[in-house]
Amino acid sequence: MLDLSVDVCSLTAALIDVESVSGNEAVLADLVEQALRGCPGLAVERDGNVVLARTRRRHPQLVTLAGHLDTVPIADNLPAREDGELLWGCGSSDMKSGLAVALRLAHLVGSGALVPSVDLSWVFYDCEEVDASRNGLGRLARERPATLAADLAILLEPTSGVIEAGCQGTLRAVVTLSGRRAHSARSWLGSNAIHAAAPILARLADYEARVVDLDGLTYREGLNAVAISGGSAGNVVPDVCTVTVNFRFAPDRTQAQARQHVADVFTGYPVEVVDFAPAAAPGLDHPLARAIIDASGAAPQPKLAWTDVARYAELGIAAVNFGPGDPNLAHTREEHVELGRIVAAERVLRSFLAGPIRSAPGGR
Amino acid sequence: MLDLSVDVCSLTAALIDVESVSGNEAVLADLVEQALRGCPGLAVERDGNVVLARTRRRHPQLVTLAGHLDTVPIADNLPAREDGELLWGCGSSDMKSGLAVALRLAHLVGSGALVPSVDLSWVFYDCEEVDASRNGLGRLARERPATLAADLAILLEPTSGVIEAGCQGTLRAVVTLSGRRAHSARSWLGSNAIHAAAPILARLADYEARVVDLDGLTYREGLNAVAISGGSAGNVVPDVCTVTVNFRFAPDRTQAQARQHVADVFTGYPVEVVDFAPAAAPGLDHPLARAIIDASGAAPQPKLAWTDVARYAELGIAAVNFGPGDPNLAHTREEHVELGRIVAAERVLRSFLAGPIRSAPGGR
Repeated sequence: MLDLSVDVCSLTAALIDVESVSGNEAVLADLVEQALRGCPGLAVERDGNVVLARTRRRHPQLVTLAGHLDTVPIADNLPAREDGELLWGCGSSDMKSGLAVALRLAHLVGSGALVPSVDLSWVFYDCEEVDASRNGLGRLARERPATLAADLAILLEPTSGVIEAGCQGTLRAVVTLSGRRAHSARSWLGSNAIHAAAPILARLADYEARVVDLDGLTYREGLNAVAISGGSAGNVVPDVCTVTVNFRFAPDRTQAQARQHVADVFTGYPVEVVDFAPAAAPGLDHPLARAIIDASGAAPQPKLAWTDVARYAELGIAAVNFGPGDPNLAHTREEHVELGRIVAAERVLRSFLAGPIRSAPGGR
Repeated sequence: MLDLSVDVCSLTAALIDVESVSGNEAVLADLVEQALRGCPGLAVERDGNVVLARTRRRHPQLVTLAGHLDTVPIADNLPAREDGELLWGCGSSDMKSGLAVALRLAHLVGSGALVPSVDLSWVFYDCEEVDASRNGLGRLARERPATLAADLAILLEPTSGVIEAGCQGTLRAVVTLSGRRAHSARSWLGSNAIHAAAPILARLADYEARVVDLDGLTYREGLNAVAISGGSAGNVVPDVCTVTVNFRFAPDRTQAQARQHVADVFTGYPVEVVDFAPAAAPGLDHPLARAIIDASGAAPQPKLAWTDVARYAELGIAAVNFGPGDPNLAHTREEHVELGRIVAAERVLRSFLAGPIRSAPGGR
């Protein structure tokens, strides 16, 4: 059982200790659902491993707080460990500290300690760290888009406490090398598909990633092998080797352009795109986006990781990333979060939600 | 149930149709044991998935016929398919046609159609196509070497019906590439272990294998990647990639020299030897070896694949490879055997076993 009345750092540690590697979110979703149902004034709904909640105060504007429940695979970094000003553990930055802030706001609203000037909704979802096709928020966007309607979505992804705008797109593709199978004792009769991957890996090692400026924000691309597999037995020259690559691209590339670029890099080899999620433009002209930038007290930054702001952008909803985690620590064995940043993120969101909401010039 | 009274080609087809990929030999071992127990005059013994049989006619010399029951993984090449003069299917060459010849000889001896001038033994064993540590013949050599005692061992490995002498050694090693894990959206913070494999694969692709003449026989070495593996998740820059290589080396290299050569090729990288089996010198000076060469009617050839002649050589037992299969087809998807070669191999061994056995100069 999750106690939302504790301080946000203790709540983060409690969330880290509930292992929730992608596909294994049910236990954490149960705990989050139960905790939200304990908050007065919230309508709570469960849909698969997605948990939805909202206030119904008839405010003219609705802000949604969204976060994924899952983490990348554990890397000898559970349970959570507090060490001075740092809290270590899988998901500490990406994004259980963000989840803790969102859950604390639900508790504060429910207990009356925070009276927001907007309606609020919460979306906690599964499978963000895996193929886009499994993403829980994506499923809702396809099946029940009305549940995601909002004027501004705040994704509590790790941003080190600054507003990060837009996001880079991500494309995953499999490059296949072919050879001819033979007994490894007579290898000259075969053609080794693993050896054939040498130029593919050399192209990746030599790849020079583009740096792009958009709306004053600097995006940085990357092309990486994320998996390689080949070989059928210890005495067989293999006839197939596959290299899975992940291309992260700036918001100035369309889907077609991103696909073409990867095809160009691996020209001469069969390339199959197996996963795609578009980039999102910064979109900082929305009044609610400006208000939260003001509340954060810092200049906005580009978001380099793909996040579900792109999904909200596709639905026509302004969205920003804002969370206490450090994006540079996400997915590392050494993942941790600064305790001060978690407390500060809760404070920024309280200030933003309690303050007067300015209208866009000309009204909404 | 196996019927050993059928022609040797039909028996080969029946053996192919009993799938026996390494580790899965129990059903075939059961059938072989049952068939041998039906041959009069043979003492049959079962030890794990090894089946042993022998005559006890008090001849001064003992010849053993040995063959492995297992095959490499199926590659869409079961069941057996006869096509004119060819029989297709997994194991057709390596070495169910050889097993069929050995089983037919047991039937001929048991039925009195063949009266050999030597005592005979048979060894059918498991797990030859995988790590040397699992090899059934190796287990017997360690645990019960007396069961393998013989004056000449004939391994019915594929040799296209000629005597193949000695065998190349085999060494398997894992080369490990290390990197630093990071989110693939911020890949410049990590170091990609798969990309780091590029120079390893380039060294393999560029490797120039040695060709060696020994006792008039030409051996040909080879160094190949047989497996590659890396990657933990689709959005993570991987910190580990492993390349498993297989070095096949001529009989003029000792174990230490073979290990040193692989270490030299991959200098600068950690290399762990995970499997090793020594080479065996040709050893054609034994009178029984000369007799079977005469019976085969062809000049002896070097054996390029590692075979268990090396295990017999370590026990001080003369050993040759002789079988109907084509070694160049072993482990391929297109594996097949010429029906005429199977019949010819049975005839050569009948002739050899029925003929007068010459003693070495100076007597045995």
